[in-house]
Amino acid sequence: MKRKNIPSVTINRLSIYHRCLEKLIENIDKGKLKYISSFEIAEITGMNSAQIRKDLAYFGEFGKRGIGYPLIGLSRELKKILGLDKKWSVIIAGAGNLGKALVNYKGFLKKGFIIKGIFDNNPSKIGKKLDHIFIYDIKEVEKFIQSENINIGILVVPANSAQEVADKMVAGGIKAILNFAPTHIVLPPEIKIHNVDLSIEFEGLTYYLISR
Amino acid sequence: MKRKNIPSVTINRLSIYHRCLEKLIENIDKGKLKYISSFEIAEITGMNSAQIRKDLAYFGEFGKRGIGYPLIGLSRELKKILGLDKKWSVIIAGAGNLGKALVNYKGFLKKGFIIKGIFDNNPSKIGKKLDHIFIYDIKEVEKFIQSENINIGILVVPANSAQEVADKMVAGGIKAILNFAPTHIVLPPEIKIHNVDLSIEFEGLTYYLISR
Repeated sequence: MKRKNIPSVTINRLSIYHRCLEKLIENIDKGKLKYISSFEIAEITGMNSAQIRKDLAYFGEFGKRGIGYPLIGLSRELKKILGLDKKWSVIIAGAGNLGKALVNYKGFLKKGFIIKGIFDNNPSKIGKKLDHIFIYDIKEVEKFIQSENINIGILVVPANSAQEVADKMVAGGIKAILNFAPTHIVLPPEIKIHNVDLSIEFEGLTYYLISR
Repeated sequence: MKRKNIPSVTINRLSIYHRCLEKLIENIDKGKLKYISSFEIAEITGMNSAQIRKDLAYFGEFGKRGIGYPLIGLSRELKKILGLDKKWSVIIAGAGNLGKALVNYKGFLKKGFIIKGIFDNNPSKIGKKLDHIFIYDIKEVEKFIQSENINIGILVVPANSAQEVADKMVAGGIKAILNFAPTHIVLPPEIKIHNVDLSIEFEGLTYYLISR
């Protein structure tokens, strides 16, 4: 099956399986757990085991009947499928507090997301640096994306300028946008966007606060 | 069944169902879509429909056989179950860039998470305000949690002081911690912790970048 015909919910689940395997690999003695079954992945992730087998089968035969999937091997395959074994060039639009925080965020570099530039429209910020990354004029974002072959744009501008900045990124040839601005953005269908809502992070916690 | 005996994976899924319903309610003409089946929720969320029925059945009989679940009614019930219909008192430990960004984050207040104070150990920050919220000495965090009845602590301190600050919060009686510090924190089992990894937000995007 062609990659683009795989349901997007499958891709989201692959990402969950991958994280589950990574965590297992991190927490077990090397070599102690060699294989994992779809039932065990289901148990840990809360997904359905038949669904897991189906999702993985889109991409090949990774497991052995009665034995399971090789833990490290499957994790490596998922990493490849998801594109997490590559380096990606990223820009940040918005040099406010969140933009600054993201520049410093160690997790991005570790996972292969390399921030190549920051963009803002504030003259007092343009030309300065944040953590060794140059702040450019937002007017240059289109040219920069083209010349530096940027893959992903992070949008941390105020809601009322989010659409305009996203349009500039698309004009420059960006293929994917990670949007932290609390607003709905309309993009051509071929551009992938992921809207981040940090308040979701609280949701798993509050259940337990009222259950006492 | 007692709330505390519900599997945590079920709670995570309830949160996903709730967001799915909220989105539907937001995007449809009022009154147009009155009922939704577990199959439709499954289709949208990528979950398994039998699993959805089982998860919801822990908390009551929300649906009608052959008709489905009332869209608005079920959303309201899930909101209640998850504790998202309440106001929660929150503190932020760490007045760095991410702490500043979170203070300004409009999504929190909208969802009922009210930031009551910020804490830092930097004398040049203590006593100042961020967006009308006072910055206190981290030494006072224990007393503050007690006297102000704080429910949730957000940890945005450097990795090497995260455990120490988390311990202070727990000593003050905090029940849940949202941890942005990129480190593993050990807490008593009755304290709920959710570790935030912002690089996860990229994961759904990169698949589509290599599939071109």
